[in-house]
Amino acid sequence: VLLALVGDLHEADVGAVIETLAEDERPAFVRLLGDAFDYTALTELDEAVRVKLLEELPTADIAAGLGELDSDDAVYILEDLDAEDQAAILGELSYSDRMQIERALDYPEESAGRRMQTDFIAVPPFWTVGQTIDHMREADDLPETFYELYVVDPGFRLIGAVALNKILRTPRGEKISAIMTETRHSVLATEDQEEVARRFERYNLVSSAVVDEADRLVGVLTVDDIVDVIQEEAEEDMRALAGVGDEEISDSVVTTARSRLTWLVVNLGTAILASLVIALFDDTIEAMVALAVLMPIVASLGGNAGMQTMTVAVRAIATQDLDARNMMRVLRREVLVGIVNGVALSILIGVVVYFWFDNPGLGMVIGSAIVVNLLFAGLCGLLIPITLDRLRVDPAIASSVFVTMVTDVVGFFAFLGIAAVWFSLPF
Amino acid sequence: VLLALVGDLHEADVGAVIETLAEDERPAFVRLLGDAFDYTALTELDEAVRVKLLEELPTADIAAGLGELDSDDAVYILEDLDAEDQAAILGELSYSDRMQIERALDYPEESAGRRMQTDFIAVPPFWTVGQTIDHMREADDLPETFYELYVVDPGFRLIGAVALNKILRTPRGEKISAIMTETRHSVLATEDQEEVARRFERYNLVSSAVVDEADRLVGVLTVDDIVDVIQEEAEEDMRALAGVGDEEISDSVVTTARSRLTWLVVNLGTAILASLVIALFDDTIEAMVALAVLMPIVASLGGNAGMQTMTVAVRAIATQDLDARNMMRVLRREVLVGIVNGVALSILIGVVVYFWFDNPGLGMVIGSAIVVNLLFAGLCGLLIPITLDRLRVDPAIASSVFVTMVTDVVGFFAFLGIAAVWFSLPF
Ligand SMILES: [Mg+2]
Ligand SMILES: [Mg+2]
Ligand SMILES: [Mg+2]
Ligand SMILES: [Mg+2]
Ligand SMILES: [Mg+2]
Ligand SMILES: [Mg+2]
Ligand SMILES: [Mg+2]
Ligand SMILES: [Mg+2]
Ligand SMILES: [Mg+2]
Ligand SMILES: [Mg+2]
Ligand SMILES: [Mg+2]
Ligand SMILES: [Mg+2]
Ligand SMILES: [Mg+2]
Repeated sequence: VLLALVGDLHEADVGAVIETLAEDERPAFVRLLGDAFDYTALTELDEAVRVKLLEELPTADIAAGLGELDSDDAVYILEDLDAEDQAAILGELSYSDRMQIERALDYPEESAGRRMQTDFIAVPPFWTVGQTIDHMREADDLPETFYELYVVDPGFRLIGAVALNKILRTPRGEKISAIMTETRHSVLATEDQEEVARRFERYNLVSSAVVDEADRLVGVLTVDDIVDVIQEEAEEDMRALAGVGDEEISDSVVTTARSRLTWLVVNLGTAILASLVIALFDDTIEAMVALAVLMPIVASLGGNAGMQTMTVAVRAIATQDLDARNMMRVLRREVLVGIVNGVALSILIGVVVYFWFDNPGLGMVIGSAIVVNLLFAGLCGLLIPITLDRLRVDPAIASSVFVTMVTDVVGFFAFLGIAAVWFSLPF
Repeated sequence: VLLALVGDLHEADVGAVIETLAEDERPAFVRLLGDAFDYTALTELDEAVRVKLLEELPTADIAAGLGELDSDDAVYILEDLDAEDQAAILGELSYSDRMQIERALDYPEESAGRRMQTDFIAVPPFWTVGQTIDHMREADDLPETFYELYVVDPGFRLIGAVALNKILRTPRGEKISAIMTETRHSVLATEDQEEVARRFERYNLVSSAVVDEADRLVGVLTVDDIVDVIQEEAEEDMRALAGVGDEEISDSVVTTARSRLTWLVVNLGTAILASLVIALFDDTIEAMVALAVLMPIVASLGGNAGMQTMTVAVRAIATQDLDARNMMRVLRREVLVGIVNGVALSILIGVVVYFWFDNPGLGMVIGSAIVVNLLFAGLCGLLIPITLDRLRVDPAIASSVFVTMVTDVVGFFAFLGIAAVWFSLPF
């Protein structure tokens, strides 16, 4: 019954079923399905779930399962295992499968070479459309799906590509060389997946040839795998901004706690710095406790405004919409937005504080401190990511520490400093 | 010269060139290119730039340019214009183009009907592969690129799809009905693009038929357009978390300031709430100013820990990795992570405070307040997004306000309250 039920499901749904099961039922489920289990489903699991499950399955079964897959899926499943398990599984694969996978694993993590598929169709430019179609009807080692054919010279160097719909529209007698598109944006196997994904997006590609340094065709990337990369990379930035690493909902307590602690310790450092600023004004606060009550408002508004500018800047840098050409214009805008919103908020809070503490001076002080802090928030929310990007540090990872540090320090300093001067308090 | 240079560029590159130009040079550039300008390039521009540019170009030119495009690109360009300009341009289009575009514009914004392309190839199931290929060789109104053919019954209801590579591999005599895949996941024209994108991702699709309520084939979605949707939706969440709307780097000062102000005003409200908590303890602070110096540390660590949990939770909900089934397990994990990291940070800050203020009691107080706050941060970082999602509010938009509110209020209350009790201070 199980077999009948599962056999009809898409591998993505089988993956979802596995994730629903309790941890100790998963290996039993896979073993029960036996040959009917399509290992492609493993590519749809969270990394933590996949690694755990593979540790429980017999090496021989895994090897048999991987042998059936497209090479890119097999690599995706193997790459997260430790070297020892990898070697054991590879040892049981056929020679040609093993070679393909080992070659891919030799490329760096997150490179095009890791994500590419090594089954593809390559034809010489002098073949006719008819010859090509006949070849495809007869060949039996074709990839499962493909959208383009590649044209290579006798040295297997890439010359061009032909979309399948072009072939279907062209009379049988025509030569391939006449309908192919010359390669313009070929992908190097060592390129980072993020670069490649951006090219797919920009040029609306569905697949792309991957070449080695000698320009020889070594594999093909397809958009379904690139879609996952795009998703991953956008999330990577979002998580980096919040100080969480490459975390998944299925990770363990220890992994999660450790990966988040680093960020919290950095944050502790900047918070202590802000406390030092407050400590400068301890006599001022002693003389007027209302300042202690209000000071978090200034810092918090600045922090939020800074995060707003920074989020826009980080994404604009990632999608290459922000660069030296338009930086000055954007900077001018951020300064103006900071002033406009600063003034608007000042008026609001000034009125609230006036009625709350019955002290018009205090309303003025907090208002001007907010304008100052929102101005700094706009400036550093933009300049910090840009500077980090120039220094070749990923702006998504490091920006928020610096931005909150600046807005906290400036916020407390401006508010307490202006108050000390305005009310002639000690400091 | 310009013509020769630009003629050879991909439309995405032409788009990039336009964005590099100063605002007043853009219309001149397009007019200079005349018929050689491919309006597809407009789909690659930021919305603000596109709308401005279209306002400067003569209606007749725009209509002529749009007439050449795939219907989805024409719709994408027209949808952001105001109703009046839209009508003027539509009036100059040919009848059939106008009908196609108007029908798409009738579907809601961000729906599949808006994004779909209305040129596609549909064949009856009883045709043979040979007949189909001959049809494609002769027809002249084929879409520019396509990856599948669709199979329809006499009432134009969708039965199935055939990938082009299937057709190329099959002998001419075979019937289409024998090689087609029956439709299982067809997309409704009124469905939201986010749902559709998730289906493309999950089932690794390159294109999908779109049907109306009567199951009739009305259009086709291709992955290159879905890639843009995926990118947009991931960014939407990231921006929502930081309180910035649908903002682009090319927006004006007024637009930007207005869209960000709402969030800052909400934030002002929660900051005032936190101040009210501090005001409860004004006598405590007056008796011990060191508390004012240290209290932002507790709130800031809690806020950061809350954002970490919340970011993971928001994305897990969006990608459907977090639901009722695994909620309890994740909740347990968050509580444990909160305690582990809370204890680790307490020890660190406890030691720092002990040496700084030479007061072991103060170290104990701040340490226990941090443990309490990190526990609350973990709980509300998870439960707030889940609750909002149940209430059908987008968790990405509203979560961070509530989370910071809780961590600020709990942080100040725990720290000042514990201190007041420990040192028997007035409050
Ligand atoms: Mg992985
Ligand atoms: Mg694109
Ligand atoms: Mg693949
Ligand atoms: Mg895949
Ligand atoms: Mg990366
Ligand atoms: Mg990145
Ligand atoms: Mg739009
Ligand atoms: Mg996928
Ligand atoms: Mg399209
Ligand atoms: Mg497009
Ligand atoms: Mg949306
Ligand atoms: Mg969303
Ligand atoms: Mg804060």
